[in-house]
Order: sequence, then C-alpha cells, then structure tokens
Amino acid sequence: MKKSALQIARAAYRPQLPIVLTGGVKVKEGEPTQSAGDQEEIKKLFPNTYGLPELVFEKTAASTSSKPINVGVILSGGQAPGGHNVISGLFDGIKSINKDSKLYGFLMGPGGLVDHNYKELTSDIIDEYRNTGGFDIIGSGRTKLETKEQFDKGLEILRELGITALVIIGGDDSNTNAAILAEYYKAIDAGVQVIGVPKTIDGDLKNNVIETSFGFDTATKVYSEVIGNIQRDCNSSKKYWHFIKLMGRSASHIALECALQCQPNVCIISEEVEAKDMTLSQVVNEIADAVVARANNGMNYGVVLIPEGLIEFIPAVKKLIAELNDLLAAKAEEFAAVPAEEQRAWVIKNLSAECAATYESLPAGVARQLTLDRDPHGNVQVSLIETEKLLSEMVGKRLGELAAKGEYKGKYSTMHHFFGYEGRCADPSNFDANYCYGLGYTAACLIASGVTGYMSSLRNLTFAPVNWVAGGIPITMMMNMERRHGHMKPVIRKALVELDGAPFLKFAKERDAWKIGTCYTYPGPIQYFGPAEVCDLPSMTLVYEQKRRKY
Amino acid sequence: MKKSALQIARAAYRPQLPIVLTGGVKVKEGEPTQSAGDQEEIKKLFPNTYGLPELVFEKTAASTSSKPINVGVILSGGQAPGGHNVISGLFDGIKSINKDSKLYGFLMGPGGLVDHNYKELTSDIIDEYRNTGGFDIIGSGRTKLETKEQFDKGLEILRELGITALVIIGGDDSNTNAAILAEYYKAIDAGVQVIGVPKTIDGDLKNNVIETSFGFDTATKVYSEVIGNIQRDCNSSKKYWHFIKLMGRSASHIALECALQCQPNVCIISEEVEAKDMTLSQVVNEIADAVVARANNGMNYGVVLIPEGLIEFIPAVKKLIAELNDLLAAKAEEFAAVPAEEQRAWVIKNLSAECAATYESLPAGVARQLTLDRDPHGNVQVSLIETEKLLSEMVGKRLGELAAKGEYKGKYSTMHHFFGYEGRCADPSNFDANYCYGLGYTAACLIASGVTGYMSSLRNLTFAPVNWVAGGIPITMMMNMERRHGHMKPVIRKALVELDGAPFLKFAKERDAWKIGTCYTYPGPIQYFGPAEVCDLPSMTLVYEQKRRKY
Repeated sequence: MKKSALQIARAAYRPQLPIVLTGGVKVKEGEPTQSAGDQEEIKKLFPNTYGLPELVFEKTAASTSSKPINVGVILSGGQAPGGHNVISGLFDGIKSINKDSKLYGFLMGPGGLVDHNYKELTSDIIDEYRNTGGFDIIGSGRTKLETKEQFDKGLEILRELGITALVIIGGDDSNTNAAILAEYYKAIDAGVQVIGVPKTIDGDLKNNVIETSFGFDTATKVYSEVIGNIQRDCNSSKKYWHFIKLMGRSASHIALECALQCQPNVCIISEEVEAKDMTLSQVVNEIADAVVARANNGMNYGVVLIPEGLIEFIPAVKKLIAELNDLLAAKAEEFAAVPAEEQRAWVIKNLSAECAATYESLPAGVARQLTLDRDPHGNVQVSLIETEKLLSEMVGKRLGELAAKGEYKGKYSTMHHFFGYEGRCADPSNFDANYCYGLGYTAACLIASGVTGYMSSLRNLTFAPVNWVAGGIPITMMMNMERRHGHMKPVIRKALVELDGAPFLKFAKERDAWKIGTCYTYPGPIQYFGPAEVCDLPSMTLVYEQKRRKY
Repeated sequence: MKKSALQIARAAYRPQLPIVLTGGVKVKEGEPTQSAGDQEEIKKLFPNTYGLPELVFEKTAASTSSKPINVGVILSGGQAPGGHNVISGLFDGIKSINKDSKLYGFLMGPGGLVDHNYKELTSDIIDEYRNTGGFDIIGSGRTKLETKEQFDKGLEILRELGITALVIIGGDDSNTNAAILAEYYKAIDAGVQVIGVPKTIDGDLKNNVIETSFGFDTATKVYSEVIGNIQRDCNSSKKYWHFIKLMGRSASHIALECALQCQPNVCIISEEVEAKDMTLSQVVNEIADAVVARANNGMNYGVVLIPEGLIEFIPAVKKLIAELNDLLAAKAEEFAAVPAEEQRAWVIKNLSAECAATYESLPAGVARQLTLDRDPHGNVQVSLIETEKLLSEMVGKRLGELAAKGEYKGKYSTMHHFFGYEGRCADPSNFDANYCYGLGYTAACLIASGVTGYMSSLRNLTFAPVNWVAGGIPITMMMNMERRHGHMKPVIRKALVELDGAPFLKFAKERDAWKIGTCYTYPGPIQYFGPAEVCDLPSMTLVYEQKRRKY
C-alpha cells in the first residue's frame, strides 16, 4: 500500500494521554447508579450488572505487574474517525499491563465473533494504523448481537483463544447489546468481561456522563470544511442557492455543529420542526422567506443545511409514511394492478383526508418514490428520498406563487450536495486521535480492574488531554425502556438536540443575522501540525455544552 | 465577519517569491514568437501584438524608483483557489514600484468593467483576503469581453480612473479575450496595457510555456482528500461501489490527478474514450469487468472516478445529442403534441438507426432528460445529466446479464458523489498561494516593463519558489484558429490529457493493479503548517510532466 506524505508524517503523532493513565492506576468507586428511566424493568433485565458504581481512575505510585490478558475487539456499525486509535490505545494499554497480553480483532463487525473470523493484532499491524481514519484494520459490520445463540457461539471462539475480555466499539444500539452480552456472560459465569466504547459521528450517543461520542469532532470538521468552501463559492459567484444535506438520521447534531462552525443562511433542525409540529409546507415557507428576504437585499444566493432525517421528524410526513406502509401492505395486490398513470389518484383516494393532503403537496417524483421504492419488508425507504432536492423544488414552487402575487422578484437557481461518506473515515483530528486513544487505553484499565458492563469514559474534554478524567460508566445507567419494532426493549436513550441546550440556543440567537446578512465563516481543512488554536479545538457543540458544567 | 482560527493563522503566511523578484528586475527578451497554429491568420488578426518575444525577468542591483501606476483587475469565470493571492501579489508589486500606485477591482467579473462597477482595493481590504480561497474580494462573472462596444465602454472608466494597465485573471477564453482587448487598445493607442493570468481548476490552460494554471493544485487536493476518505469507508464496510463524478467538462486532468493521488479501482479518462472511439456500452462493460473481477476475489466494493465531461467525449453519444438537437428543433411542434408515454417511441422512430440504437441503450430517466430538459436555445443540457448515476445503473444492468449467464455472482450496491463546488474556493495550498502571489507580482513587473498582450508566467514550478523563473509569454503564441459556434475564431488551444504524456502513461501502467488489488492511497486534508513534504508538494500531474523537461 502506497502511503501519502500525510499518512507517513501523521503516523509519528503520539496521542496525549490523561496524566492519570501515565503510570499505575487505582480505581475509585462512586455511589451505586440507577438507570436513566424505568428502573424496575431495567433492574429486572440486568440482575448482575445493574446498579454498579461509576468508576474513576486515580494515579498511584506503584505500577504492579499483572498477568497477561487476551482481549477481543469489535468495530460495530458505521465508520467514525478514530476507531483505529481506540484499538491502538487498547493495545498499548493491555501491553502496559503485561507485554505478553494479546489483542484479537473480530473481522467485519460483530458477525466476526459469531462466525469465528478474527486476526491477532500484532504491533506491526497496529503501527500501520495509528492516527488513521477508517475501520479497515479489521472492518466493521451491522450484525446485531442479540440472541443467546450468537452469545454462545461467540463464547466458543473466546474460550478457544483464551479471551477474557471483549471491547465493543459502537453506537447506542451496539452498546446496548454490549450491556446485554455483559449481563449474559456474567449470568452464566463465562469469565468474559464486556466493555463498550462510545462511537458515532451522529453525536447522538451522549448524556450527562458521556460528554461526546468519538468521530463527531472529525466528521463535522470535514463537513464544515467543504460547506465553508461552498459558502465561499456562493459568495463569489452570487448566483446559487446551495442545499446541503448532512448525514445523521436520528438527530440533528451534525447540522447544528456545522451551522455553528460555518454560519450558513438557513439550517433546519429536525428536533425543532417536530417540537413545533411544523408541516412540510411550513419548513418550505421558512426557507422561501429567507430567499425572499435576501432577494429583497439584492442577494439571490445562499446556503441551506438540512439534516438527513428531517422528513421523518415532520409529524404530518411521519403519519403519511405510516399510513402508506399500512395501505400498501393491506392492498398490495390491488395497487399492483393499478396502471402507472393512475397510481397517484389511487393513492390519494385510499388515504385519509389529512394524509392525502400531505401526499398531494409533494412533488411528483418524491410521491412516486414513496409508493414504489419499498424495502424487503414493504416499507417506504425514507433514506432514498433526496430531501435536499425535495425542499429546493418545493421552495421554487412557493417562490413562483409569491412572484405571481408580486411578492418576490428574485432569481432562484439551485445546487445540491449530500455529505456523509466524505467524513466518516477521515484521519482523526487531534481531538479525536487523543480521545480515541484514551478511550482504548481506559478500556484496558477497566479490563484490568475486572469489571464488566461498563462504557469507557473520558470527561472534562474541553480541557487539555492531560487533565481529562478517565473512568467507567455502567452502561445500564444510560438505559430506559423504549418501543422498538413493536416490542418494549431496554435501550440507551438517544441524545437528540435539546432545544433548551446551549448549542441550540446559541444558534437560535444568531440565525436571524445569518439569514439576512452574509456571515459565512470558513473553517478550512483539519490541521494537524499548526498552532494549538487551529489544531486542538474540540467541537463547538462540546464547548457550549460543557461551558455550563464541569465534572 | 467571524473568522475561523485557521483563517486568522493563515493570514500571517508570507508567500515565497522567486528570488529574481525580490529586488530590482530587468527584462531579458527572447526570440520573436509564433502562434501555436494558423500563423498567417493569427498574425492578420493581431497585427500589433503578434510575434512578440518571450520575456524573462533577471535580478538587477539597482532598484530604480518609478512613477505611480493605476491598475485595474478582473476575476473572470469560475472560481479557483488562489485568486486573492494573485491580487495581493499584484498589489504588493505595484506598491513596490511606487507606494502611490493604485489598484482598482472591477466587480462581478468582466461585466464590472463594461458597467463601470468597481472599488479601489486598499491595503486594509487586501490584508483581509491574503491566502484565502474564493473570489469574493471583488466577485467573478462570466460576461465575455468580445465586442468593440464593450472595449470602448470599458475604456471610459479606465480613463476616468487613470488606469493604464488591466490584469485579467481567467481561463483560456478569458485570456483569448484579453489578447483581443490588448490588440484593440494597442491599435487605437488607448494607452492601456492588458496582462492575462492563467486560472482554472480544470487544468486545461497549459502548454509548453505555461506549466499549469492556478487553482488546479488546491482543487484536486480537496477532491483527493474526500475521495481518499470515501475509499477508506469503502474498504472498511466493503459493501458499496462508489461512483464519483469530478468537475471538469472539457478535459480529464482533474480525474487523472485524483487517480494518481488516490489509486482508485477505476478511473475513466474521456480523452482515451474518444481516442479509442468507445461506445457507452464499452465504457460500461469496462467498469462491469472490474466489478466482476473484484467480485471473483470476494470484493464487492470499489471506487470509480468519472470526469464530468465524459458523455460528450463518447462519439456515439455526441452524435446522438447533435441529432436530437436538430430533430427537436426541426419538429418541435410535432414533438410537443406527442403524449408523454409515446415520446420515447417517437424519438426512436425519428432518429437515424445508429442514434436510435444509442438512445435505446440509455436508461429511461436519462433518455427522458435528453428530450425534455433543454436550454433556451433548444439544446440538450448535457451538464444536467447525472453521468455517475447513468453509468452505475447501466453497469448494474450489465451485471444482471452476466449473472443470468452465470458469469457473475457478486453483490452490487452503489453510492454516488459529485465534487466540484467543494474545491473551487478552498484556501489555496502553499503551492497555489506561492504561485498565485508570484503570478500577480510578475504581472506588476510586466506592467512596469510597458508590455501588453502578455500572460504572466512562472516556470520551473517543481523546484522551490525561490528558483522559479518569472517572465511573460505573448498570449498570441498560444493561439490557433478553431470553430466555435459555427465561426472560425482565434483561441488559446485547450490542453487535453495527452495519451502519450507522462501522467497518463503512469496511470495506464498502474491501473490494472489498482483495479484488482485494493491499492487506495489516502492523501488527507491540505496541510499548511507541517513538514515540507506534506505541505509543499505540487500536483503529481505537474511533477510527472516536468520530470521530462526542465526550462
């Protein structure tokens, strides 16, 4: 593999560890914890791992030598920058415990555990991947570890390899399953600890004990780089409205962070749309109003950020999709017999009046997509909807109406972008490189402490890494019961954008000025070697959130 | 305007000037030059500016103080990283000639000259834009300076402001027009010099005397950054074929440079497709063959780069588009009356057998687009065709055929990307920051030398900037006669990818290995502060091209 100049230079970077982890550590236990909600149910489901105390590591003079340990590691779900550093931190951590410790990577996600696909990660391999993006060291996958059969099958290979601890690097679902696995292995006395590591670029795995998930920092910086570039272009040619969709279906943290970084003219926050019970037309009108206001000031250009998941947050559209799913499931044969040109009318006739009205308001292409492109379960494939085009087209229609009434005289040309895959595997920023390495190293310390069902934790993240507080959080502490696929299940509560949270309030305070003025900020590409204020700043979301609380 | 940390830090960067420009300069004249082709015609069209000698600046001890000069500057056409540095170099250059010199920027492109929209660029303004991307300092536009009326109108404001030299920063067309304007002002003895500066991210303005146009270096580095990130993602999840379209309609330099940087599995080069007289199906089959070969090795994933202009390089498609334009112009009314569901059949019936076959091979969506989306002149809007989706869909169809014959057993899921606006306004790389600043400074020296009809030139660009050779190239030297919009016109010959050139030969030698193996290289984001081998390398295209010749 030919390496780029940056890869070679970056390989030499030494992530900064919290000072507490730079020698021997001892564990300080906090009070017993409770789950985030539904305490009785969660306690019942996790009799062996419920109520554990928070753990904080403290420095201790004597570094006692311990027995070697064999550890397994799994990358689960979508890629996030820094995964390789979690693994290198974990590797260095278990080697510092005993140089004969071994690390095994299960290949292509949790499926590697079940199917016994693995490789030993030696220092040669680890060194190839330090400070690099991607999950390609062992690959990732979306197999869910949920069943007893999977757990038992996994245990076979763990026993064969003498693995006594498993580290699962994943998002909320994967960490939920890590907790279930930890509970199961504890219950059957399997002798395998399970430790989770909080990963997701979406930023929705965080709470009052987990300040952020890794990858969010780097991914949003890459998106902000290209959004900033597009804004420069927009402000140079002054002739397009750019509609930019950003990855993140279940929460709008990415869009919000990029808005704080770049100061675009409009940014839609799904959680606000839902909270205000806005219709699609209201969202469209809000954007159209910005276009009109800018046109009145001679500016027929602008930038709009849209979270990928928006459409599912609009109550009326959500209702329409649910009704369509039911309708097309119930009358699949009848619908299949309807000639193409009569399908639209058929759908409208068969929907409730409210949903028919929503359906009629959609551009023909999107409406067709909602009835035709269905997944193997017969459900609408919402992720295929090009929300950025849907909105820009509907805004154009609205502007046409306003022009007819003499209320708009501008020009309206559009460009569309979608950023997601561009940022998930970027080389980690210094923040993510340090954070991930520290999370992996902390996981090793948790393993050495003999605990299970914990998530690796670093706090005080807006301070320099030496001052970060390392420890472990019982995963059950973040859980509550939620309905998923028709059943009540214990899950880690997803962090949505809080409308009374500091990041959103900052955005809400500024956005009117950004709309009319052209207040673009250009963050530029991630820098690794320059001045600290350029290279080391964490995300603005984290900075605003942590301003108000210090651990 | 809130500045990002990088903007603030980067403002302090001092571009490196060629040593010859760091004191007084004197001009060394070469031999009289000839145009690239059609010497007699070009000579007739440019009686006053034809046959001028190449100029090279040499250092001279005595820096004689000169009279102040008033200079105008215009940004023409699409944005390219470094435009602001051309202007700051020009500003510093004319100030070094005399501190009372003045620089005026004409607003929103050449139209600003004609319409008398301008602003004086003072040091306060210039300092705000040093080393930044974009053309927002004065904006850009696509008005073509072509007519005597425009030239005369422009002269009014030039005289009013006492401007005796005009610098036009643009691509091949804009520099062609700069030469025509230079000739005209010389012919009427207007007392206004005209100097061109070679700009375009497309990389198609270069020849044996102009090594590269500015912006290409930075833009391709931004594209390579995100392509590299996508390749990491691809190689981590191992489940998608990513089809990535790259800006650049008239040449494939961008795609080729990104391929050399990133080593994707497939990269289509339009010039090769045309030279081999390939059909669309042959291009599709070539990609499908790569998909099959990788699937046979268990790899159902990969990355394909596609130049934006591909479709217009495929002889059969080019012919189809021309025939469609004629057909739909000749039978516009008849076509308008054809019901939507019968249009396809009508088009096929009315085309020649050859073009009908090409039309039938296209997916329905693209075929519809070719007949429906037409520009105000009734022509097919080729730029609207989503070539990346067209190809991936046709590859899918081809794979289906192969699967039916038992010749393909893989999985095929696709993702699509288009990068263009993401890179045109990036902060210039060190190379472009230096190159642009030097081009602007050289333009000032050319003005001081009293010449007109020259393009600012820096050569030896693969060496350190101190060793660059500064001078001027007569624009007429790059010209020949070509048919444009039905008329023979003097134009600067566009540089296409040369199939016997070093960059393409390097690619051609490696590509089979890249196809089957997974040889991805990850260039990462542009770095401004790190080691020289990370921050200062020019494009690989330039390096390979210049390896074989030294000025």
